[in-house]
Amino acid sequence: MPPYDPDNIFGKILRGEIPAHKVYEDEHSLAFMDVMPQGEGHTLVIPKAPARGLLDAEPQTLAALIGTVQRVGRAVKAAFDADGLTLFQYNEPAGGQTVFHLHFHLVPRHDGVPLKRHEGGMADNAVLAEHAARIRAALESTA
Amino acid sequence: MPPYDPDNIFGKILRGEIPAHKVYEDEHSLAFMDVMPQGEGHTLVIPKAPARGLLDAEPQTLAALIGTVQRVGRAVKAAFDADGLTLFQYNEPAGGQTVFHLHFHLVPRHDGVPLKRHEGGMADNAVLAEHAARIRAALESTA
Repeated sequence: MPPYDPDNIFGKILRGEIPAHKVYEDEHSLAFMDVMPQGEGHTLVIPKAPARGLLDAEPQTLAALIGTVQRVGRAVKAAFDADGLTLFQYNEPAGGQTVFHLHFHLVPRHDGVPLKRHEGGMADNAVLAEHAARIRAALESTA
Repeated sequence: MPPYDPDNIFGKILRGEIPAHKVYEDEHSLAFMDVMPQGEGHTLVIPKAPARGLLDAEPQTLAALIGTVQRVGRAVKAAFDADGLTLFQYNEPAGGQTVFHLHFHLVPRHDGVPLKRHEGGMADNAVLAEHAARIRAALESTA
């Protein structure tokens, strides 16, 4: 497995070099909207600490991150009045990974609605902004 | 979301009421082979504490569990000489969940080999036993 390379798009988001529709941030983690959503409300949660994937992350990085995944997961499900929640985490190209900074996908799910393909296209910026605002509001009301 | 119901098949595995091809066990968690694998080496990691899914789990349950997911994930990838690793975690029927005890799916992946459907059928018992032994050996050699 190659070492972590900070020149990836999530590294750039963490450094403020490119924008993102952020929904949550703390000392250890950041959550923002996936720009190629597999469903309405598809959100990513990443650690601030460098890690290529699940397997090279420091244990304390993972322990903090999964807490954020739960917290944001609850808000995502509430914000979209979802029936369920699907979590994905991909490692290496064979495992489905395309950005090499550890991330958890959180997709709110509704009965009878299948997932879209991840490469289904870029979402509208205004729609993502509205979705991010909805999740932030849900986080505030459940804090 | 309904409360946790201990009368589920993973609860029965935890209580020793039905068998499983176990690969790892500690105070907080258990890992065993999925009997309907989406790929060779498909392994499940569950907490011993009661939790229906990601959203109702105690924070300390999740923190311990994700450490086991990483540890077992490394062994699963090594045992099958995999190129990658895919993690799934499903919540509620709309989210893909069929057994209502929190579990993480770990599937070792090889370049160019797609996932099989989860309902693709029961794996051969002897094959699962051999796969479990392979993962246990990998855990010992990386411990």
